[in-house]
Amino acid sequence: MIVDPAKASGKDLYFLMISAIVPRPIAWVSTQDKSGRTNLAPFSYFQGVTSKPPLLSICIGHRRWQGEMVKKDTLRNIEETGEFVVNVATEALARAVNQSSAEYPPEESEIEAIGLTSLPSDLVKPPRIKESPIHFECKLDRVIMLGNPPLTGMVIGEVVRFHIDDSVWSAEEAMVDAAKLKPLSRLGGEWWGSTRDLFKLPRPDWAAKGVQAGVKAKG
Amino acid sequence: MIVDPAKASGKDLYFLMISAIVPRPIAWVSTQDKSGRTNLAPFSYFQGVTSKPPLLSICIGHRRWQGEMVKKDTLRNIEETGEFVVNVATEALARAVNQSSAEYPPEESEIEAIGLTSLPSDLVKPPRIKESPIHFECKLDRVIMLGNPPLTGMVIGEVVRFHIDDSVWSAEEAMVDAAKLKPLSRLGGEWWGSTRDLFKLPRPDWAAKGVQAGVKAKG
Repeated sequence: MIVDPAKASGKDLYFLMISAIVPRPIAWVSTQDKSGRTNLAPFSYFQGVTSKPPLLSICIGHRRWQGEMVKKDTLRNIEETGEFVVNVATEALARAVNQSSAEYPPEESEIEAIGLTSLPSDLVKPPRIKESPIHFECKLDRVIMLGNPPLTGMVIGEVVRFHIDDSVWSAEEAMVDAAKLKPLSRLGGEWWGSTRDLFKLPRPDWAAKGVQAGVKAKG
Repeated sequence: MIVDPAKASGKDLYFLMISAIVPRPIAWVSTQDKSGRTNLAPFSYFQGVTSKPPLLSICIGHRRWQGEMVKKDTLRNIEETGEFVVNVATEALARAVNQSSAEYPPEESEIEAIGLTSLPSDLVKPPRIKESPIHFECKLDRVIMLGNPPLTGMVIGEVVRFHIDDSVWSAEEAMVDAAKLKPLSRLGGEWWGSTRDLFKLPRPDWAAKGVQAGVKAKG
Protein backbone atom coordinates (compact mmCIF):
# COMPACT_ATOMS: atom_id res chain seq x y z
CA MET A 1 0.00 0.00 0.00
CA ILE A 2 1.25 3.45 -0.97
CA VAL A 3 -0.04 6.73 0.44
CA ASP A 4 0.81 9.98 -1.28
CA PRO A 5 0.46 12.86 1.18
CA ALA A 6 -0.75 15.26 -1.51
CA LYS A 7 -3.80 13.03 -2.08
CA ALA A 8 -4.59 12.30 1.58
CA SER A 9 -6.51 14.35 4.14
CA GLY A 10 -4.85 15.80 7.23
CA LYS A 11 -6.86 13.41 9.35
CA ASP A 12 -5.75 10.38 7.32
CA LEU A 13 -2.12 11.49 7.54
CA TYR A 14 -2.51 11.99 11.29
CA PHE A 15 -3.74 8.43 11.83
CA LEU A 16 -1.04 7.07 9.55
CA MET A 17 1.70 8.94 11.41
CA ILE A 18 0.50 8.01 14.90
CA SER A 19 0.06 4.34 14.01
CA ALA A 20 3.43 4.05 12.22
CA ILE A 21 5.75 6.04 14.54
CA VAL A 22 5.46 3.73 17.54
CA PRO A 23 5.83 3.25 20.46
CA ARG A 24 5.97 6.91 21.49
CA PRO A 25 7.07 8.10 24.94
CA ILE A 26 4.67 10.50 26.64
CA ALA A 27 5.49 13.95 27.96
CA TRP A 28 2.84 14.66 30.58
CA VAL A 29 3.26 18.41 30.72
CA SER A 30 2.25 20.73 33.56
CA THR A 31 2.16 24.46 32.89
CA GLN A 32 0.71 27.62 34.38
CA ASP A 33 -0.69 30.69 32.75
CA LYS A 34 0.38 34.19 33.82
CA SER A 35 -2.25 34.26 36.57
CA GLY A 36 -1.08 30.94 38.01
CA ARG A 37 -3.83 28.64 36.72
CA THR A 38 -2.36 25.21 36.11
CA ASN A 39 -2.82 22.86 33.19
CA LEU A 40 -1.81 19.24 32.61
CA ALA A 41 -1.87 17.48 29.24
CA PRO A 42 -0.12 14.54 27.52
CA PHE A 43 1.91 14.84 24.31
CA SER A 44 3.50 11.95 22.45
CA TYR A 45 5.25 13.91 19.70
CA PHE A 46 8.10 14.09 22.18
CA GLN A 47 11.81 13.44 21.82
CA GLY A 48 15.19 13.93 23.40
CA VAL A 49 17.33 16.37 21.44
CA THR A 50 20.79 16.52 23.02
CA SER A 51 22.48 16.05 26.40
CA LYS A 52 24.68 19.06 27.10
CA PRO A 53 22.67 21.10 27.80
CA PRO A 54 19.81 18.58 28.15
CA LEU A 55 17.25 19.62 25.55
CA LEU A 56 13.97 17.95 24.65
CA SER A 57 11.26 18.81 22.16
CA ILE A 58 7.49 18.51 22.20
CA CYS A 59 5.25 19.28 19.22
CA ILE A 60 1.91 20.86 20.05
CA GLY A 61 -0.86 21.37 17.52
CA HIS A 62 -3.96 23.51 17.69
CA ARG A 63 -7.41 22.54 18.90
CA ARG A 64 -10.91 23.58 18.00
CA TRP A 65 -12.46 25.73 20.71
CA GLN A 66 -15.84 27.40 20.30
CA GLY A 67 -15.62 27.01 16.53
CA GLU A 68 -12.10 28.34 16.04
CA MET A 69 -8.64 26.79 15.87
CA VAL A 70 -6.68 28.05 18.88
CA LYS A 71 -3.33 27.22 20.45
CA LYS A 72 -3.63 24.50 23.08
CA ASP A 73 -3.37 25.80 26.65
CA THR A 74 0.02 24.08 27.07
CA LEU A 75 1.63 25.92 24.16
CA ARG A 76 0.06 29.25 25.11
CA ASN A 77 1.22 28.88 28.74
CA ILE A 78 4.78 27.91 27.73
CA GLU A 79 4.98 30.90 25.40
CA GLU A 80 3.62 33.20 28.14
CA THR A 81 5.80 32.00 31.02
CA GLY A 82 8.77 30.18 29.45
CA GLU A 83 8.41 27.31 31.94
CA PHE A 84 7.01 23.80 32.10
CA VAL A 85 7.45 20.43 33.80
CA VAL A 86 7.58 17.10 31.98
CA ASN A 87 6.23 14.33 34.21
CA VAL A 88 7.06 10.81 33.04
CA ALA A 89 3.94 8.71 32.41
CA THR A 90 3.83 5.18 33.78
CA GLU A 91 1.56 2.25 33.10
CA ALA A 92 -0.19 2.74 36.47
CA LEU A 93 -1.09 6.30 35.42
CA ALA A 94 -2.60 5.35 32.04
CA ARG A 95 -6.18 6.26 32.88
CA ALA A 96 -5.20 9.59 34.44
CA VAL A 97 -2.96 10.45 31.47
CA ASN A 98 -5.74 9.64 29.03
CA GLN A 99 -8.28 11.60 31.05
CA SER A 100 -6.00 14.66 31.04
CA SER A 101 -6.27 14.81 27.24
CA ALA A 102 -9.91 15.86 27.58
CA GLU A 103 -10.70 19.46 26.73
CA TYR A 104 -11.14 21.24 30.01
CA PRO A 105 -11.85 24.96 30.01
CA PRO A 106 -8.66 26.98 30.71
CA GLU A 107 -9.89 27.97 34.18
CA GLU A 108 -10.16 24.34 35.30
CA SER A 109 -7.02 22.46 36.35
CA GLU A 110 -6.80 18.87 35.17
CA ILE A 111 -4.66 18.10 38.22
CA GLU A 112 -7.48 18.60 40.71
CA ALA A 113 -10.23 17.43 38.34
CA ILE A 114 -8.51 14.04 37.93
CA GLY A 115 -7.61 13.69 41.60
CA LEU A 116 -3.85 14.03 41.22
CA THR A 117 -1.49 15.73 43.65
CA SER A 118 0.59 18.85 42.93
CA LEU A 119 4.14 19.09 44.25
CA PRO A 120 5.98 22.42 44.09
CA SER A 121 8.89 22.60 41.68
CA ASP A 122 12.26 24.01 42.74
CA LEU A 123 13.23 26.24 39.82
CA VAL A 124 10.02 26.82 37.84
CA LYS A 125 6.47 27.80 38.80
CA PRO A 126 4.45 24.94 37.25
CA PRO A 127 3.95 22.11 39.73
CA ARG A 128 5.19 18.55 39.46
CA ILE A 129 2.75 15.63 39.62
CA LYS A 130 3.45 13.63 42.74
CA GLU A 131 2.08 10.40 41.27
CA SER A 132 4.78 10.44 38.55
CA PRO A 133 8.22 9.11 39.60
CA ILE A 134 10.31 11.33 37.28
CA HIS A 135 10.01 15.08 36.70
CA PHE A 136 12.00 17.30 34.36
CA GLU A 137 11.80 20.97 35.34
CA CYS A 138 12.19 22.83 32.04
CA LYS A 139 12.78 26.33 30.75
CA LEU A 140 11.86 27.29 27.22
CA ASP A 141 14.74 27.47 24.77
CA ARG A 142 12.60 28.39 21.74
CA VAL A 143 9.37 27.61 19.91
CA ILE A 144 9.69 26.73 16.21
CA MET A 145 6.47 26.96 14.19
CA LEU A 146 6.27 24.20 11.56
CA GLY A 147 3.77 22.87 9.02
CA ASN A 148 0.74 24.58 7.52
CA PRO A 149 -1.44 27.20 9.25
CA PRO A 150 -2.57 26.89 11.94
CA LEU A 151 1.04 25.96 12.59
CA THR A 152 2.32 23.31 14.99
CA GLY A 153 4.55 24.66 17.75
CA MET A 154 7.71 22.66 18.34
CA VAL A 155 8.71 23.54 21.90
CA ILE A 156 12.43 23.12 22.62
CA GLY A 157 12.93 22.97 26.39
CA GLU A 158 16.08 22.85 28.50
CA VAL A 159 15.92 20.60 31.55
CA VAL A 160 17.17 22.67 34.50
CA ARG A 161 16.57 20.02 37.16
CA PHE A 162 15.82 16.28 37.10
CA HIS A 163 13.92 14.58 39.94
CA ILE A 164 14.07 10.79 39.95
CA ASP A 165 12.35 8.69 42.59
CA ASP A 166 14.66 6.03 44.04
CA SER A 167 12.00 3.41 43.35
CA VAL A 168 12.71 3.57 39.59
CA TRP A 169 16.51 3.80 39.78
CA SER A 170 18.91 0.93 39.18
CA ALA A 171 21.92 1.36 41.48
CA GLU A 172 23.70 -1.44 39.65
CA GLU A 173 23.29 0.11 36.20
CA ALA A 174 23.35 3.73 37.44
CA MET A 175 20.37 4.78 35.37
CA VAL A 176 16.59 4.64 35.33
CA ASP A 177 15.44 1.02 35.31
CA ALA A 178 12.72 0.50 32.71
CA ALA A 179 11.57 -2.69 34.45
CA LYS A 180 10.84 -0.65 37.58
CA LEU A 181 9.57 2.48 35.80
CA LYS A 182 7.08 0.57 33.61
CA PRO A 183 6.79 3.47 31.17
CA LEU A 184 3.57 4.02 29.26
CA SER A 185 3.58 4.66 25.52
CA ARG A 186 1.17 5.79 22.85
CA LEU A 187 0.40 3.83 19.73
CA GLY A 188 -2.14 4.46 16.95
CA GLY A 189 -5.75 5.55 17.50
CA GLU A 190 -6.87 4.73 21.01
CA TRP A 191 -4.13 2.13 21.60
CA TRP A 192 -1.51 2.37 24.33
CA GLY A 193 1.51 0.24 25.11
CA SER A 194 3.08 -1.15 28.24
CA THR A 195 6.84 -1.70 28.31
CA ARG A 196 7.29 -5.12 29.81
CA ASP A 197 9.24 -7.21 27.32
CA LEU A 198 12.77 -5.89 27.65
CA PHE A 199 16.01 -7.30 26.32
CA LYS A 200 19.62 -6.25 26.17
CA LEU A 201 21.95 -6.19 23.16
CA PRO A 202 25.62 -5.21 23.41
CA ARG A 203 26.11 -1.99 21.47
CA PRO A 204 28.82 -2.66 18.90
CA ASP A 205 30.50 0.76 19.00
CA TRP A 206 30.49 1.05 22.80
CA ALA A 207 32.57 -2.07 23.33
CA ALA A 208 35.20 -0.76 20.91
CA LYS A 209 35.34 2.64 22.61
CA GLY A 210 35.20 1.32 26.17
CA VAL A 211 31.99 3.21 26.97
CA GLN A 212 30.66 2.34 30.40
CA ALA A 213 26.90 2.93 30.57
CA GLY A 214 25.37 4.76 33.51
CA VAL A 215 25.23 8.00 35.45
CA LYS A 216 27.95 8.72 37.99
CA ALA A 217 26.63 12.04 39.26
CA LYS A 218 24.10 11.68 42.04
CA GLY A 219 23.39 15.18 43.30
CA MET B 1 17.38 11.95 43.73
CA ILE B 2 18.01 15.31 42.09
CA VAL B 3 20.38 15.92 39.19
CA ASP B 4 21.41 19.45 38.30
CA PRO B 5 22.61 19.56 34.71
CA ALA B 6 25.22 22.22 35.46
CA LYS B 7 26.96 19.79 37.82
CA ALA B 8 26.69 16.67 35.62
CA SER B 9 28.86 15.50 32.74
CA GLY B 10 27.54 15.24 29.20
CA LYS B 11 27.84 11.46 29.43
CA ASP B 12 25.83 11.32 32.67
CA LEU B 13 23.14 13.55 31.17
CA TYR B 14 23.05 11.34 28.09
CA PHE B 15 22.42 8.18 30.12
CA LEU B 16 19.85 9.97 32.24
CA MET B 17 17.96 11.23 29.18
CA ILE B 18 17.99 7.90 27.31
CA SER B 19 16.87 5.95 30.37
CA ALA B 20 14.09 8.41 31.33
CA ILE B 21 12.56 9.27 27.91
CA VAL B 22 11.26 5.79 27.11
CA PRO B 23 10.21 3.83 25.14
CA ARG B 24 11.57 5.57 22.04
CA PRO B 25 10.54 4.67 18.49
CA ILE B 26 13.43 4.04 16.11
CA ALA B 27 14.04 5.76 12.80
CA TRP B 28 16.22 3.39 10.81
CA VAL B 29 17.53 5.85 8.29
CA SER B 30 18.97 5.08 4.87
CA THR B 31 20.85 7.84 3.04
CA GLN B 32 23.30 8.26 0.19
CA ASP B 33 26.20 10.60 -0.24
CA LYS B 34 26.65 12.62 -3.45
CA SER B 35 28.52 9.77 -5.11
CA GLY B 36 25.75 7.27 -4.34
CA ARG B 37 27.34 5.39 -1.43
CA THR B 38 24.59 4.25 0.92
CA ASN B 39 24.43 4.39 4.70
CA LEU B 40 22.01 2.90 7.21
CA ALA B 41 21.86 3.87 10.90
CA PRO B 42 19.29 3.87 13.74
CA PHE B 43 18.20 7.00 15.64
CA SER B 44 15.84 7.05 18.58
CA TYR B 45 15.68 10.80 19.14
CA PHE B 46 12.84 10.66 16.64
CA GLN B 47 9.36 12.15 16.68
CA GLY B 48 6.35 12.99 14.59
CA VAL B 49 5.92 16.74 14.18
CA THR B 50 2.70 17.43 12.29
CA SER B 51 0.43 15.78 9.72
CA LYS B 52 -0.27 18.25 6.90
CA PRO B 53 2.31 18.18 5.47
CA PRO B 54 3.59 15.06 7.27
CA LEU B 55 6.76 16.19 9.03
CA LEU B 56 9.02 14.22 11.33
CA SER B 57 12.21 15.09 13.16
CA ILE B 58 15.38 13.17 13.98
CA CYS B 59 18.19 14.51 16.14
CA ILE B 60 21.69 13.47 15.10
CA GLY B 61 24.78 14.15 17.18
CA HIS B 62 28.42 13.98 16.24
CA ARG B 63 30.77 11.04 16.54
CA ARG B 64 34.47 10.69 17.19
CA TRP B 65 36.31 9.63 14.04
CA GLN B 66 40.11 9.43 13.90
CA GLY B 67 40.39 11.63 16.97
CA GLU B 68 38.00 14.40 15.89
CA MET B 69 34.29 15.08 16.40
CA VAL B 70 32.64 14.89 12.99
CA LYS B 71 29.07 14.88 11.72
CA LYS B 72 27.64 11.39 11.49
CA ASP B 73 27.38 10.11 7.90
CA THR B 74 23.58 10.27 8.07
CA LEU B 75 23.51 13.99 8.86
CA ARG B 76 26.22 14.79 6.32
CA ASN B 77 24.40 12.82 3.61
CA ILE B 78 21.03 14.44 4.35
CA GLU B 79 22.60 17.89 4.21
CA GLU B 80 24.36 17.02 0.93
CA THR B 81 21.42 15.45 -0.88
CA GLY B 82 18.26 16.61 0.94
CA GLU B 83 16.85 13.07 0.88
CA PHE B 84 16.46 10.11 3.22
CA VAL B 85 14.25 7.10 3.96
CA VAL B 86 12.95 6.19 7.41
CA ASN B 87 12.49 2.43 7.68
CA VAL B 88 10.37 1.30 10.63
CA ALA B 89 12.25 -1.04 12.97
CA THR B 90 10.50 -4.19 14.16
CA GLU B 91 11.29 -6.67 16.91
CA ALA B 92 12.45 -9.25 14.34
CA LEU B 93 15.03 -6.74 13.07
CA ALA B 94 16.51 -5.91 16.49
CA ARG B 95 19.92 -7.48 15.92
CA ALA B 96 20.29 -5.91 12.48
CA VAL B 97 19.23 -2.49 13.81
CA ASN B 98 21.73 -2.72 16.66
CA GLN B 99 24.48 -3.89 14.32
CA SER B 100 23.88 -0.91 12.02
CA SER B 101 24.83 1.44 14.87
CA ALA B 102 28.45 0.24 14.59
CA GLU B 103 30.90 2.71 13.13
CA TYR B 104 31.54 1.59 9.59
CA PRO B 105 33.83 3.65 7.39
CA PRO B 106 31.85 5.95 5.05
CA GLU B 107 32.76 3.85 2.00
CA GLU B 108 31.16 0.72 3.47
CA SER B 109 27.38 0.28 3.29
CA GLU B 110 25.77 -1.16 6.39
CA ILE B 111 23.02 -2.60 4.18
CA GLU B 112 25.28 -5.13 2.47
CA ALA B 113 27.56 -5.63 5.49
CA ILE B 114 24.59 -6.75 7.61
CA GLY B 115 23.02 -8.86 4.88
CA LEU B 116 19.95 -6.71 4.31
CA THR B 117 18.25 -6.09 0.98
CA SER B 118 17.94 -2.72 -0.77
CA LEU B 119 14.72 -1.79 -2.56
CA PRO B 120 14.66 1.26 -4.84
CA SER B 121 12.60 4.20 -3.62
CA ASP B 122 10.11 5.95 -5.91
CA LEU B 123 10.78 9.64 -5.26
CA VAL B 124 14.19 9.80 -3.56
CA LYS B 125 17.57 8.21 -4.28
CA PRO B 126 18.34 6.46 -0.96
CA PRO B 127 17.06 2.87 -1.00
CA ARG B 128 14.40 1.35 1.24
CA ILE B 129 15.17 -1.70 3.37
CA LYS B 130 13.11 -4.62 2.12
CA GLU B 131 13.10 -6.36 5.51
CA SER B 132 11.23 -3.41 7.08
CA PRO B 133 7.45 -3.37 6.51
CA ILE B 134 7.02 0.45 6.51
CA HIS B 135 9.09 3.05 4.67
CA PHE B 136 8.76 6.83 4.70
CA GLU B 137 10.42 8.45 1.69
CA CYS B 138 11.50 11.88 2.96
CA LYS B 139 12.79 15.18 1.65
CA LEU B 140 14.64 17.56 3.90
CA ASP B 141 12.63 20.53 5.16
CA ARG B 142 15.45 22.04 7.24
CA VAL B 143 18.23 21.23 9.68
CA ILE B 144 18.21 23.13 12.99
CA MET B 145 21.47 23.10 14.94
CA LEU B 146 20.86 22.89 18.71
CA GLY B 147 22.88 22.51 21.91
CA ASN B 148 26.56 23.17 22.49
CA PRO B 149 29.36 22.77 19.92
CA PRO B 150 29.75 20.36 18.26
CA LEU B 151 26.06 20.99 17.73
CA THR B 152 23.32 18.39 17.34
CA GLY B 153 21.48 18.53 14.02
CA MET B 154 17.71 18.32 14.26
CA VAL B 155 16.62 17.11 10.84
CA ILE B 156 13.07 18.06 9.91
CA GLY B 157 11.89 15.84 7.06
CA GLU B 158 8.73 15.86 4.98
CA VAL B 159 7.31 12.45 4.09
CA VAL B 160 6.64 12.48 0.34
CA ARG B 161 5.50 8.86 0.09
CA PHE B 162 4.48 6.20 2.60
CA HIS B 163 4.88 2.48 1.84
CA ILE B 164 3.02 0.14 4.18
CA ASP B 165 3.10 -3.62 3.80
CA ASP B 166 -0.36 -5.17 3.95
CA SER B 167 0.89 -7.60 6.59
CA VAL B 168 1.00 -4.83 9.23
CA TRP B 169 -2.25 -3.07 8.26
CA SER B 170 -5.55 -3.42 10.09
CA ALA B 171 -8.37 -3.21 7.57
CA GLU B 172 -10.88 -3.05 10.40
CA GLU B 173 -9.21 -0.09 12.11
CA ALA B 174 -7.85 1.45 8.90
CA MET B 175 -4.41 2.07 10.33
CA VAL B 176 -1.16 0.28 11.10
CA ASP B 177 -1.79 -2.53 13.59
CA ALA B 178 0.81 -2.46 16.37
CA ALA B 179 0.06 -6.09 17.25
CA LYS B 180 1.08 -7.09 13.71
CA LEU B 181 3.91 -4.57 13.32
CA LYS B 182 5.61 -5.54 16.61
CA PRO B 183 7.60 -2.30 16.71
CA LEU B 184 10.99 -2.21 18.37
CA SER B 185 11.92 0.53 20.81
CA ARG B 186 15.03 1.84 22.54
CA LEU B 187 15.34 2.20 26.29
CA GLY B 188 18.33 3.19 28.43
CA GLY B 189 21.88 1.90 27.99
CA GLU B 190 21.87 -1.33 26.02
CA TRP B 191 18.20 -2.11 26.72
CA TRP B 192 15.55 -2.48 24.04
CA GLY B 193 11.81 -2.94 24.24
CA SER B 194 9.26 -5.07 22.48
CA THR B 195 5.71 -3.76 22.11
CA ARG B 196 3.50 -6.67 23.02
CA ASP B 197 1.29 -5.55 25.89
CA LEU B 198 -1.25 -3.31 24.19
CA PHE B 199 -4.49 -1.91 25.53
CA LYS B 200 -7.16 0.49 24.36
CA LEU B 201 -8.64 3.47 26.21
CA PRO B 202 -11.45 5.60 24.77
CA ARG B 203 -10.08 9.08 24.17
CA PRO B 204 -12.32 11.48 26.05
CA ASP B 205 -12.27 14.36 23.56
CA TRP B 206 -12.78 12.16 20.48
CA ALA B 207 -16.09 10.79 21.68
CA ALA B 208 -17.40 14.32 22.25
CA LYS B 209 -16.28 15.47 18.79
CA GLY B 210 -17.37 12.32 16.96
CA VAL B 211 -13.84 11.59 15.71
CA GLN B 212 -13.65 8.27 13.88
CA ALA B 213 -10.13 6.86 14.02
CA GLY B 214 -8.46 5.49 10.90
CA VAL B 215 -7.22 6.27 7.42
CA LYS B 216 -9.71 6.38 4.56
CA ALA B 217 -7.29 7.14 1.76
CA LYS B 218 -5.68 4.07 0.29
CA GLY B 219 -3.70 5.26 -2.72
